[in-house]
Amino acid sequence: MKYCSHCRADIVTTIPAGDNRERFMCSSCDIIFYENPRIIAGSIPVYGDKILLCKRSIEPRLGYWTLPAGFMENGETTLQGAWRETIEESQADVTVGELFSICNVPRINQVHMFYLATMPSEDCGPTSESSEVGLYSEADIPWDEIAFGTVKQTLKRFFADRKAGLYQLHHLEF
Amino acid sequence: MKYCSHCRADIVTTIPAGDNRERFMCSSCDIIFYENPRIIAGSIPVYGDKILLCKRSIEPRLGYWTLPAGFMENGETTLQGAWRETIEESQADVTVGELFSICNVPRINQVHMFYLATMPSEDCGPTSESSEVGLYSEADIPWDEIAFGTVKQTLKRFFADRKAGLYQLHHLEF
Repeated sequence: MKYCSHCRADIVTTIPAGDNRERFMCSSCDIIFYENPRIIAGSIPVYGDKILLCKRSIEPRLGYWTLPAGFMENGETTLQGAWRETIEESQADVTVGELFSICNVPRINQVHMFYLATMPSEDCGPTSESSEVGLYSEADIPWDEIAFGTVKQTLKRFFADRKAGLYQLHHLEF
Repeated sequence: MKYCSHCRADIVTTIPAGDNRERFMCSSCDIIFYENPRIIAGSIPVYGDKILLCKRSIEPRLGYWTLPAGFMENGETTLQGAWRETIEESQADVTVGELFSICNVPRINQVHMFYLATMPSEDCGPTSESSEVGLYSEADIPWDEIAFGTVKQTLKRFFADRKAGLYQLHHLEF
């Protein structure tokens, strides 16, 4: 960030009065530009004993497998974001249920939230973001080709909880 | 947002290729500036049968009472944010526990997350953000002077769950 998006003046890095950390501030109009973590909303789409995975056709991690998830948008709720990302990435029109995992990734200023979701049918398919979409049993999960640590750990907790017969909320840190 | 913070050129509002909603984009260097919801992290500090409330000494809702909470910062986890905001607003050095409520406020692009927290002692006090800080029994909560709907509903659920003997995760929408 080099220039003020309101008045074009130079941006300085400074600790504003009453604050305790450095912010981007305009050298002319004094507006402060705060930067905060972003939410990734996603789902674990379940159909019978299988779950849905998407093969990424975009970077990062092109060619690797993921649960459907993406940046939460302004004007929506976390549940709406999880539903929207699921249909955008997999064509699956899920019913979003309980929150299953909150994955903090402070290194990249992200919070990933995965919801349990039910698929009303096997309907799903490739999209502009996913070259392949399919339903996988636990035994068939491509563990070495999972795109992100948050997805891998969420899947591991999901299968462990399913075995134990109780889904809990998991707080994970990466 | 009027000018590009990277090159000072004019910003246009457009739907970028491969996207499905309007974004701020630079008319010269084509950088896209995404805007996403922010997380408010906070706690419900418990000491015996009382909970801690803060009287706000800053806008918005100056003079009204709130649970300690504020914008999650880059580089921290949701739990660290809840702990930091609690000590910054009330001087109480709590132990953060389970997530209690997720309050979606899509109208203002915010997600409020309140964690149950334990106070090791009665130690708390005013800060630059709170003119008064105190411990309140359920009967003494100033219900008509609570600053935010998310705080009021979180408190109501907290006391109901305490009565029922089981704290659950509450998804609320405002």
